[in-house]
Amino acid sequence: MVQLHGNIVGIDAAIFMHPKTWKASGHVDAFNDPLVDNKDSKKRYRADVLIEGVVDKINDKINKEVEKAAKRFGESFDEKMFRETNPRCVEYAQKAAAIEKQLAEAMKAGDMAALKTMLEELEIADPESGSRNWTDVRQFNLMFNTQLGNIAGEEGKLYLRPETAQGIFVNFLNVQRSTRQKIPFGIAQIGKAFRNEIVARQFIFRMREFEQMEMQFFIRPGSQKEWYAKWKELRMKWHLALGTPQSKLRFKDHDNLAHYADAAVDVQYEFPFGFKELEGIHSRTDFDLGSHEKLSGKKLQYFDPELNESYVPFVVETSIGADRMFLAMMSQAYTEETVPDAQGEEATRVVLKLHPALAPVKCAVLPLLKNKEELTTVATDIFNKLKFSVDCQYDEKDAIGRRYRRQDAIGTPYCVTVDFQTLEDKTVTLRDRDTLKQERIKIEDLERILVEKTDMKNLLTKLV
Amino acid sequence: MVQLHGNIVGIDAAIFMHPKTWKASGHVDAFNDPLVDNKDSKKRYRADVLIEGVVDKINDKINKEVEKAAKRFGESFDEKMFRETNPRCVEYAQKAAAIEKQLAEAMKAGDMAALKTMLEELEIADPESGSRNWTDVRQFNLMFNTQLGNIAGEEGKLYLRPETAQGIFVNFLNVQRSTRQKIPFGIAQIGKAFRNEIVARQFIFRMREFEQMEMQFFIRPGSQKEWYAKWKELRMKWHLALGTPQSKLRFKDHDNLAHYADAAVDVQYEFPFGFKELEGIHSRTDFDLGSHEKLSGKKLQYFDPELNESYVPFVVETSIGADRMFLAMMSQAYTEETVPDAQGEEATRVVLKLHPALAPVKCAVLPLLKNKEELTTVATDIFNKLKFSVDCQYDEKDAIGRRYRRQDAIGTPYCVTVDFQTLEDKTVTLRDRDTLKQERIKIEDLERILVEKTDMKNLLTKLV
Repeated sequence: MVQLHGNIVGIDAAIFMHPKTWKASGHVDAFNDPLVDNKDSKKRYRADVLIEGVVDKINDKINKEVEKAAKRFGESFDEKMFRETNPRCVEYAQKAAAIEKQLAEAMKAGDMAALKTMLEELEIADPESGSRNWTDVRQFNLMFNTQLGNIAGEEGKLYLRPETAQGIFVNFLNVQRSTRQKIPFGIAQIGKAFRNEIVARQFIFRMREFEQMEMQFFIRPGSQKEWYAKWKELRMKWHLALGTPQSKLRFKDHDNLAHYADAAVDVQYEFPFGFKELEGIHSRTDFDLGSHEKLSGKKLQYFDPELNESYVPFVVETSIGADRMFLAMMSQAYTEETVPDAQGEEATRVVLKLHPALAPVKCAVLPLLKNKEELTTVATDIFNKLKFSVDCQYDEKDAIGRRYRRQDAIGTPYCVTVDFQTLEDKTVTLRDRDTLKQERIKIEDLERILVEKTDMKNLLTKLV
Repeated sequence: MVQLHGNIVGIDAAIFMHPKTWKASGHVDAFNDPLVDNKDSKKRYRADVLIEGVVDKINDKINKEVEKAAKRFGESFDEKMFRETNPRCVEYAQKAAAIEKQLAEAMKAGDMAALKTMLEELEIADPESGSRNWTDVRQFNLMFNTQLGNIAGEEGKLYLRPETAQGIFVNFLNVQRSTRQKIPFGIAQIGKAFRNEIVARQFIFRMREFEQMEMQFFIRPGSQKEWYAKWKELRMKWHLALGTPQSKLRFKDHDNLAHYADAAVDVQYEFPFGFKELEGIHSRTDFDLGSHEKLSGKKLQYFDPELNESYVPFVVETSIGADRMFLAMMSQAYTEETVPDAQGEEATRVVLKLHPALAPVKCAVLPLLKNKEELTTVATDIFNKLKFSVDCQYDEKDAIGRRYRRQDAIGTPYCVTVDFQTLEDKTVTLRDRDTLKQERIKIEDLERILVEKTDMKNLLTKLV
């Protein structure tokens, strides 16, 4: 974001912000999950997740009917027709749809009593203990809170930020003035955010402590449709440039718009557990800046010299989870494949096919043999010269084939091997992780070639 | 740390850790400040800071006596002699020393009742309200705590890490095995830490939310003196390489060793408000790994193939505050100086003399005039080419002299100006922030020269 765009600047805002920030953003009043305790097991659940569990079970039943029928009818089976006409399937589907509708209405209205009634009517039991002895359902705020030591009581209550975006909004004028930006311009930030999820699961997909990468782009009111389209295009280009195939990525419009948005879409990635949100692109209007202005009594307006008027800018944001991106890249890169081994026999290797710009180790420097000082000396010299320009590892332990496999497994795109020919002609072999091809390179050209092949710059220039 | 040393690796541990981590580290039991409330003003104070305030007042009185005498005696005045012989000064000094001794003893014993007695006997009043109506003094734990949503009560209590070090200790074996390190090796981390300070002050010197840069170096038991000396030397070299003069830096041994240390020293920097801790270097023995081993029941031992035995490694750590380092660099770099202006007259400029590797903007690209498209086109082309290798700003607003001043004020080490000669011979001027000298450079050489002059690599290679 920052390196590519002359009009996007980075900041690092605080995790602890003034508590009123979260009042203005709507998080104090509206950032809730419906919580329910089982009185017997003392376990806590999200009431909506328990109810969705019933829907899942009904859908399982439908799927079983479909499977049975598919077996019976063989190749002539028309699944769609069966689902729509089989009386049992239709009955189940109607029941599921009715529950989902009722749930959506209760959630939208924030009607906790209605959720409790649903728990009772659907006879939902605690999955752990089987007990149906539930407390009332209550709104549980997802912000973690703590207490300042130097102020007693409610006034000292402090929240851990549930998103990095608000740190950008409250600093918007500071940044605009000190970096002398004109609209349109953006502010980007990477940082920790915290959400007190009742249920955190799917590896690192949903965590209570996580890392966001957000960018808020400040624009003229009225131009939001154009910029929303533009940022959708730019962000998809970014994902594709990292090597993710188009087939694994899709846009998914939000069914229900949040209180701050007039348009919102997710970039979804096909994880091993299905298509899930990786990034959100939101047209946030002037909701945030307007709210902060109202609650603080301070102007958050931009004077537009071309229009000769002041206004609260509109915002289009791109918001991606760093941890989710990490999980997506790991899911995408992890490969088990059959390759010839040193003897030309078939062997299995694990290889992490990360884009070179993302690989944590760009190059491994390997002397062919550990016990030949003439080789290890040259390899160590190469490592010490390279390490300032290229992230390197030096490894001399075990046979060379085993060392290649280790580097494959951590995604190192290039291995440099110092062998006996090196001592004669000052060349080394450069092995490519993906093609397994090796070419001989002069030592003096190594740094330039490796920087060219692995530097983030190569990725960035493709995005211009 | 990580780029320079093949045997130091980086990690990014969590802010929320298992609560027992902080039991093992000693933070739950011993990371306290003595807190007291004034019942009338409802203000909170640290009892030790209130008592130290009395000592400060006594010292002020001594200093006033010294000043008066100095005026009276003129050049012949011997300050040391006066302080040691003047009856009033001696009386005050004895009183101050007695209070300090009593305070140190109470603090060491954790005797809160003794502190309360001191508040009463010294007749200390609330600086805000003048009231002497104090609550009892009680231990206040400096860790911020919060509550997990999915677990009710004390079991769901969670701390925000008060230091990054423990994230390294509990991950020590993970890192050692996955990165295949042999002792000695280090693990380094940059990250947020949180301390619920009753009093936070001196700009960003003491904050409740702050950023640490820590490195734990794992060594053989018995070798700690050698490595402690080595790391003192290496860290001082680093500080000096950033351009801080030796006169502004000093080592200060700890008067009282913490429960985990067998040697400890601060690197102090002379801030505008005096010499203060910038970094701590601590020989932590096997206290942390040993404690975690004891409390978790899991082995945290390293098998040393050369000694053919397993042991809990000893640790020497270097721990620096990123915010303090920032404040030190700003204090050091901020300069107001007199230079000739465009007309050769004396003018004042503000210049931030940051080391080029630390300057956030390395280079500004400036067309001489804004309204000459032939100049702005070339300047924009240069900016777009440079921006991937060198952090750049493009600026065309205001007279060139004013733009130079703006770049001086944010510490930009180089300005590139595109003028009419550029259109003839494809050269630009390169202006040096500190010397103000300008030389003409070919556009094609610009990227290489700027990378050479500003890249972090130059700094690192000086530290080998």
